[in-house]
Amino acid sequence: MATLESSVTLQADGQTDLDAIDQALDRSLRFGAGCPERLGEAMRYVVLGPGKRLRPRLVLMACRACGGDAATALPAACAVELIHAYSLAHDDLPAMDDDDLRRGRPTCHVQFDEATAVLVGDALQARAFELLATQLPAEHAGRCCGELARAAGAEKLVGGQSADLSGAFDGATVDDLRAIHARKTGAMFIVSLRLGAILAGAGEERLYQVTEYARALGLAFQVTDDLLDVSGSQQAVGKRLGKDADRGKLTYPKLLGVDASRRLVDELIDAAVAAVAPLGDTAGPLVDLARKLQNRDR
Amino acid sequence: MATLESSVTLQADGQTDLDAIDQALDRSLRFGAGCPERLGEAMRYVVLGPGKRLRPRLVLMACRACGGDAATALPAACAVELIHAYSLAHDDLPAMDDDDLRRGRPTCHVQFDEATAVLVGDALQARAFELLATQLPAEHAGRCCGELARAAGAEKLVGGQSADLSGAFDGATVDDLRAIHARKTGAMFIVSLRLGAILAGAGEERLYQVTEYARALGLAFQVTDDLLDVSGSQQAVGKRLGKDADRGKLTYPKLLGVDASRRLVDELIDAAVAAVAPLGDTAGPLVDLARKLQNRDR
Repeated sequence: MATLESSVTLQADGQTDLDAIDQALDRSLRFGAGCPERLGEAMRYVVLGPGKRLRPRLVLMACRACGGDAATALPAACAVELIHAYSLAHDDLPAMDDDDLRRGRPTCHVQFDEATAVLVGDALQARAFELLATQLPAEHAGRCCGELARAAGAEKLVGGQSADLSGAFDGATVDDLRAIHARKTGAMFIVSLRLGAILAGAGEERLYQVTEYARALGLAFQVTDDLLDVSGSQQAVGKRLGKDADRGKLTYPKLLGVDASRRLVDELIDAAVAAVAPLGDTAGPLVDLARKLQNRDR
Repeated sequence: MATLESSVTLQADGQTDLDAIDQALDRSLRFGAGCPERLGEAMRYVVLGPGKRLRPRLVLMACRACGGDAATALPAACAVELIHAYSLAHDDLPAMDDDDLRRGRPTCHVQFDEATAVLVGDALQARAFELLATQLPAEHAGRCCGELARAAGAEKLVGGQSADLSGAFDGATVDDLRAIHARKTGAMFIVSLRLGAILAGAGEERLYQVTEYARALGLAFQVTDDLLDVSGSQQAVGKRLGKDADRGKLTYPKLLGVDASRRLVDELIDAAVAAVAPLGDTAGPLVDLARKLQNRDR
């Protein structure tokens, strides 16, 4: 799932955001004496490694698109990245997807150990909520915590991973596949956009528009992820390829074929772009990002 | 760590609280279609099993002790129990403490599987923050999320477990042991009391008093836990005994001897009782609880 981060070329303004995000993530992972050295080191390893920070960039872009000051959204940008990073560290565990390579480096349980990988995830999740609760304007902190908690919970992120592991793909249709990815990937895309918009003071109409953008973008992201698993190079993608196919997991190319999967991506990207058209020029970076994602496997 | 819950006899009013907590926990673990059935079942198994709900009861007692309406603190009571339950499910994993018995029943990874036990913990942590963020009065939600996140994070709960696992007890003194337990056990006791007090609108002085009570009570709890590991019956305690000693873990009885450990408990309980003396009669249940804890291994 980290492939976009290593395959999208950023614009100049994107680079500034990326630097700001990386610096903020670095700051968010400094701990007092209570945190054992090895635990803190492993948390930083998992979060601060290579990555283009797609979800946190979406937070900042959504904030600007809705007329807000992106600087105020930095804690939320970090929080969604911490949740994403924790979920990868846990997904990679031997009892889960059993992956040894992530973003081109050994996964956390390989580099450290399994117990540390579990605890790293646990502590990163807590830190995400600590950031929202303590570093956002008080009038938004509670709502942002609630939105992130829901997106990260049993009905969304964790539920999607659980359904994925339990072989719920057997005999699945495209609609089933979409429903699982809506949880496993889509919910975190949606909450990224929504947190940025909320922090810009967006009303319900704007929230609806960025939510629809995120819903389409998240699904397109998953389809291109599946396409990269078939056609990408391991070096570019940064993780072992062909694994999903080897495991007998259902993927979009397998269900629809490569060409129809690409057409689906095109449709989804058009839908995403249309969703934020009413926002005008401030949504330009969101449109540009969607267009880049559209071509990341070609 | 669940031993007090099965060894303290509750008062009549405590029974009412316990019923209210159990009902609220049950309600807090109902999910929509997004949550896979097995995941939801496992979350309920971990949380709704036997247990005397010490931490949530402390939330309600602290709220009343500070003049608040305990009913408004029920979401916070549930949240601390969900964090506690998640930490047990993860601590019990093969890569961690590798326990197969908890509260007299198979642990989550034995009853379900390892991947489910990891995901159960992840989803319970998210649910805890969702409860605080969405069910507490808006003026307190953010602060409560921040306090719980800090207590559950890398410098406290998770940090303590990490230090415990890494053998930081080797050559440890009583002060070292106390520092580790302050994180692994103490922080969640403290936040339980603080959330209850915050929701009662307590000022800094009251917060300080309940924090000092919780600090002493949490440590006394850990010492009596160690004493039960030496002298308790497995049936009463609900988990395998002698494990800490078998693993070469440092315990209070080993460092101080049984008699001196009991004297330490007596001192700590006196300190806890003294800390809440300024609150007067409303702190009666906190005093009663401390006195029961004092004798739970005798």
